[in-house]
Amino acid sequence: MADMNPKPWSETTVVGKGIPRIDGRELVSGAARYSLDMDLPDMLYAATLRCPHAHARVVKVDLAKACEMPGVRAILSDADKEANVPWFRKMGPPGANPQPVSRLFDPHCRYAGDEVAVVAAETQEQAWDAVQAIEVQYEKLPFLTNVEDALKPDATAIHEGGNHPGQPNAYSRGDVAKGFAESDIVVEETYRTSCELHTPVETYGAAVRWDGDHLTVWESTQSPFSIQSGVASALKMPLSKVRVICRYMGGGFGSKQDTNKFTVIAALLARRTGRPVKYFLSREESFLCMGNRPAYSLKLKAGMKKDGTLLALELNAFGEVGAYPAGSNPVGGMLRELYTCPNVKTTEELIYINGGQIRAFRAPGYPQGAWALEQMMDTLAEKAGMDPVEFRLKNAATVCATDANKPFTSNGLPQCLTEGAKAFGWKEARARAKSDGPVVRGVGMAAALWSNVARPRSTVIVKYYLDGSVNLNMGAADLGTGMRTIMAQVVAEELGVPIARIEVENADTGTTQYSDGANGSKTTMIDSPAVRAAALDVKHKLLEAAAEQLKVPAAGLTLKNGEVAGPAGSPPTKVGQLALMQMQQVVVGVGVRAPHPSDKSIRPFAAHFAEVEVNKRTGEVRVLRMLAAQDSGRVMNRLTYESQVIGALTMGIGMALTEQRILDGNSGRMVNANWHDYKIATAMDVPAELTCLPIDPHDMEVNSTGTKGLGEPALVPAPAAIANAFYHATGVRPTAAPFTPATVINLLNQGKRQG
Amino acid sequence: MADMNPKPWSETTVVGKGIPRIDGRELVSGAARYSLDMDLPDMLYAATLRCPHAHARVVKVDLAKACEMPGVRAILSDADKEANVPWFRKMGPPGANPQPVSRLFDPHCRYAGDEVAVVAAETQEQAWDAVQAIEVQYEKLPFLTNVEDALKPDATAIHEGGNHPGQPNAYSRGDVAKGFAESDIVVEETYRTSCELHTPVETYGAAVRWDGDHLTVWESTQSPFSIQSGVASALKMPLSKVRVICRYMGGGFGSKQDTNKFTVIAALLARRTGRPVKYFLSREESFLCMGNRPAYSLKLKAGMKKDGTLLALELNAFGEVGAYPAGSNPVGGMLRELYTCPNVKTTEELIYINGGQIRAFRAPGYPQGAWALEQMMDTLAEKAGMDPVEFRLKNAATVCATDANKPFTSNGLPQCLTEGAKAFGWKEARARAKSDGPVVRGVGMAAALWSNVARPRSTVIVKYYLDGSVNLNMGAADLGTGMRTIMAQVVAEELGVPIARIEVENADTGTTQYSDGANGSKTTMIDSPAVRAAALDVKHKLLEAAAEQLKVPAAGLTLKNGEVAGPAGSPPTKVGQLALMQMQQVVVGVGVRAPHPSDKSIRPFAAHFAEVEVNKRTGEVRVLRMLAAQDSGRVMNRLTYESQVIGALTMGIGMALTEQRILDGNSGRMVNANWHDYKIATAMDVPAELTCLPIDPHDMEVNSTGTKGLGEPALVPAPAAIANAFYHATGVRPTAAPFTPATVINLLNQGKRQG
Repeated sequence: MADMNPKPWSETTVVGKGIPRIDGRELVSGAARYSLDMDLPDMLYAATLRCPHAHARVVKVDLAKACEMPGVRAILSDADKEANVPWFRKMGPPGANPQPVSRLFDPHCRYAGDEVAVVAAETQEQAWDAVQAIEVQYEKLPFLTNVEDALKPDATAIHEGGNHPGQPNAYSRGDVAKGFAESDIVVEETYRTSCELHTPVETYGAAVRWDGDHLTVWESTQSPFSIQSGVASALKMPLSKVRVICRYMGGGFGSKQDTNKFTVIAALLARRTGRPVKYFLSREESFLCMGNRPAYSLKLKAGMKKDGTLLALELNAFGEVGAYPAGSNPVGGMLRELYTCPNVKTTEELIYINGGQIRAFRAPGYPQGAWALEQMMDTLAEKAGMDPVEFRLKNAATVCATDANKPFTSNGLPQCLTEGAKAFGWKEARARAKSDGPVVRGVGMAAALWSNVARPRSTVIVKYYLDGSVNLNMGAADLGTGMRTIMAQVVAEELGVPIARIEVENADTGTTQYSDGANGSKTTMIDSPAVRAAALDVKHKLLEAAAEQLKVPAAGLTLKNGEVAGPAGSPPTKVGQLALMQMQQVVVGVGVRAPHPSDKSIRPFAAHFAEVEVNKRTGEVRVLRMLAAQDSGRVMNRLTYESQVIGALTMGIGMALTEQRILDGNSGRMVNANWHDYKIATAMDVPAELTCLPIDPHDMEVNSTGTKGLGEPALVPAPAAIANAFYHATGVRPTAAPFTPATVINLLNQGKRQG
Repeated sequence: MADMNPKPWSETTVVGKGIPRIDGRELVSGAARYSLDMDLPDMLYAATLRCPHAHARVVKVDLAKACEMPGVRAILSDADKEANVPWFRKMGPPGANPQPVSRLFDPHCRYAGDEVAVVAAETQEQAWDAVQAIEVQYEKLPFLTNVEDALKPDATAIHEGGNHPGQPNAYSRGDVAKGFAESDIVVEETYRTSCELHTPVETYGAAVRWDGDHLTVWESTQSPFSIQSGVASALKMPLSKVRVICRYMGGGFGSKQDTNKFTVIAALLARRTGRPVKYFLSREESFLCMGNRPAYSLKLKAGMKKDGTLLALELNAFGEVGAYPAGSNPVGGMLRELYTCPNVKTTEELIYINGGQIRAFRAPGYPQGAWALEQMMDTLAEKAGMDPVEFRLKNAATVCATDANKPFTSNGLPQCLTEGAKAFGWKEARARAKSDGPVVRGVGMAAALWSNVARPRSTVIVKYYLDGSVNLNMGAADLGTGMRTIMAQVVAEELGVPIARIEVENADTGTTQYSDGANGSKTTMIDSPAVRAAALDVKHKLLEAAAEQLKVPAAGLTLKNGEVAGPAGSPPTKVGQLALMQMQQVVVGVGVRAPHPSDKSIRPFAAHFAEVEVNKRTGEVRVLRMLAAQDSGRVMNRLTYESQVIGALTMGIGMALTEQRILDGNSGRMVNANWHDYKIATAMDVPAELTCLPIDPHDMEVNSTGTKGLGEPALVPAPAAIANAFYHATGVRPTAAPFTPATVINLLNQGKRQG
């Protein structure tokens, strides 16, 4: 066996470099074929009739006219026996499903966007036209657009049993009542965040094709193996007969890991018609139905001693889950772990409303939690008369309170705080903030951690060819992060192969090995050690074979550029000349990640710093510059690392300043389901100075590549840092996100009145 | 590690059964997508201008008119810089090429069929039309259509240096002169075989697509990894950047393992146009250019004692290699090994003529060798006054004379002879043969062995899902033999999984593991042990995990239908409930074949029996029944085994009675390049009674599945058995194949004159 617990990489020459993406040319030129681009001969195209009402019951569906429309080949609705099947909260592996929450085409439509019927036609346009020809009679029902209304005793019930999907998520340690009683200073505040929509560049959907009893799905997904098990479960098929492929992907951010109705419906349509079917949602449909970061109301109470020692934290949070149950959204997660605090109590609950449902969204729950916690920390620091950085340093956790107080494999938080502050020029910037005149400036910061579960073990195959080129086979999707490039670097590092000679085959359940979904910021930390192990397995096999053939000890041999080199002076041997290679053309290496240490906890950390300018006349807020100090373990690729951080900061600006789904109170319908009215931060909103400061704690306990997670923790503190900067500039606390020009004007007016 | 040298399979329940093909439904319904069916959006279609002259020099190519034809997007010819590249006898792995034998579009056209230019157009029809519009000026050269002419001193030189591609292949043991001197009986005869053409149902070609610097090739090929290395070599690419896929395949018989010009040309056209390109040959082109079993003249001299003890064999053989050098065609192979004979000398040579070149064709060289040897054995038996079966039994080899006289891992030849004779009713049939009247009947037989090299080691991956379904990942192509079904049976056997829950992904160099080409009748013998090892690896991992979780010894556990069962009485545990499975959804097993034993030789054996009827007035010969006794080791699947044998016997009938390429002496062109004029045996020519008699020697030394090769040895003796039956019926020996009605009439007239 190859050494699966190799020595730390003290001197890497490829890993860590800012190597451009191996598929950059395809991505930039448009040559890359995304799932959205999958067109197959004889393909049919699907379109959906969606309920236009926030809450309604379908009384009658008349397909007669639609069936006569040009190009129509099949229409599915609840009247269809085959489509009259249950739908689950989360499609699990076959046989593992709990109670269904609805039907595939449920006549009880719970939000404006629920599926009523789907048409397959020869062209996309014909499908859309046919949808318009379906005649539906609805019985409209009372609807709910916010949690406050949904919690009223006489509120309409969105599901049988009411509007609570389950029990609240409760956590407690110590005794918060006692903690508050012992506190010198107690602060209580309610923070609010808005519902943010997923807006990946590639919309949602799948193309499917049957080959006998075997189904191939090309889907834009972060998690091919989850889609495989969801579809197999829905269609009652063996897992082995469902193949899910996602070669290129235009973003997911957490919204592309669940099994979707569109995939199952496409499979049913394809089976019925004997044709491949492509079923991708329009941009508007993607806004309506494909998930969001839930709006939250976070009531937070904090107590501390005069000297700034945290004593107690209590959180009561309500979020909008939308019309259907969904996974947890741990807004209290960071609050329980980031700071040393003996008494903590968190209660979190998600409530039904008649809106599109939530989905995982880049660090689910954490940005909302940070929005509350990190503004509160700012307030506490002020009340303790301490600098915000100093205050956080004083209270920073040294062990993981929720994980048996285990130490961390590494803890770069203090470094993130101090080195981040230094690099940002924190003290100088705070000192020169400008609070007079119509345009004021302020500086703020916030800290964060992220808790990613790194349980699954992926298997990776490396094929080393006799010409010294390499094929890397792994299950993980590259949702746009540059994963393929990073993994190729690991192979290049261990096998001495130029990056250009490495091809990565990934995200194909039929032909690549298992990997957990690309989510939780854990692809690099889970898969790169497996890739390294597979590469080392190849190296081991090659050098052992060379040693036997050359009659020298393997320990003295090295592998580089397709050659095995011996002790200095001896001529290198081309790998193709090894008998092993001449026998089989390829050496196959297999790698799995070694288990994480059980006696330590793994957390990435971050501290963000922001400088903002507020125009008190117009309410406009401009982020002037930001710096993100990230402890995500080793930097595998300087360029992709920066891309992650810049993208996350951009998203943080959107959350703080512009993004919010608006449900119309009169109709219950979303009124801004487009990129014009739903405002994400664009290049126009992002400052030129977004600085990425990696803090590498040289953590070789976490795994063999020293990597923790980056994508999510790089977002978490950003909105709160901007809020704290706003407060620093204005003296008014923006408890509700986003603070748009209109709300800023209100805030400042209220602040004036208060002040 | 799992037990890689498991005990013999004494009681298999799935392996050995006649299980219908797992992809039978797709194959029969037309749903299976062959490489020929690969249509991609934006695809261009290629067509070839081929030299119409048997031997000519291209003086000028004028593409002007063709370029103006509708739909034309690119034309390649030798005038093109990019296409002006060398072409090799056999495209090897990158960097391994010897001297080129021609150019991609060589202006020196050496047979009527050589490529002059290739057009890519929007439709196949447009491409064909444009080819007609290309204007070429040829200088015609003298041509050669047979070996006799090619060996004349003043013959035109097809290649620089003359018409000998290389040195004759010579072998000698003992002293044949001495052997003949000591013989009581010496016989000498010259046997001839005709050139047989490859006629797989799926024609030849590839569809290609570039993704950046990565090329995907869908080709009808027995050997995806050979095509990968050939194309990588031709285009000077890393192996990892060339992906070759062949999911379904309509036959190959040896002709689909080399890298073809069409693949390289398609890649060049696709690169130039930025479009996928499909380049498949027409049926006529397939006949012209895609290889053949060479015509041979075999001068054989044999000596024996009166008691029938063989003393000496001497073979001098000349074959037609066609216009380009090709691999060897060991017509002397069987002669050197099948019988105990102390003095053997063989000299074999292939000579250039102006015809399409040879390619491997089901047991290259052996049917021709058997044609000579087994007719000679018949003659010798008669001269010794012995029964042909007895004569062969007496002389049957007991060790492998060409492999240091090693014993065989198993030798079923005596059983094939005796049990075959018994099952056929040999003695009774011989006795009742009818030689009077216009329609006579005779019975004959012939024996064979096959020498397949089983050196390469394939790697196989088995993925076992938590629902007890399985994905088998392996590199080998299924060229129509039912390989996928056989391998699924091995998995089903070891893992207790129903066949219907197993999906096989194979023959994709990008995503499946290395396997040598599907040739040499060695796929089952090489890959099934690797599949078994991979399945055992899965079983080992699952049972170990179950043992740990259930706190029982692994040895007492069994795996069946997705459940782990313990000692009798204890309830089974679903595999999905194992912590291992809940962690990763899939368990991955890896298998490689253990090396073959080095102290023994591996040979499959066969004895064929035939009864024929000859109409002495019309010359018609009908095969009334045949029986093939085959020692190919274990029968993995009774149905696919029979299919192989029936197909081989059918091919044997064609070789004996009908198949021959005809080159017109006046023009040098093939005149029967179609299925009407080139006559393969059809259902009309095949008797209802084709009996397959497997002889299983229970050989567990050869490998862990007890398998030797079947596809080729099932053909080798068939034509000679038919010839011997003809002799038995008529008393006239048909030394030249095929003996068509016209030649039979001649033969019988000559025989009469002789007799």
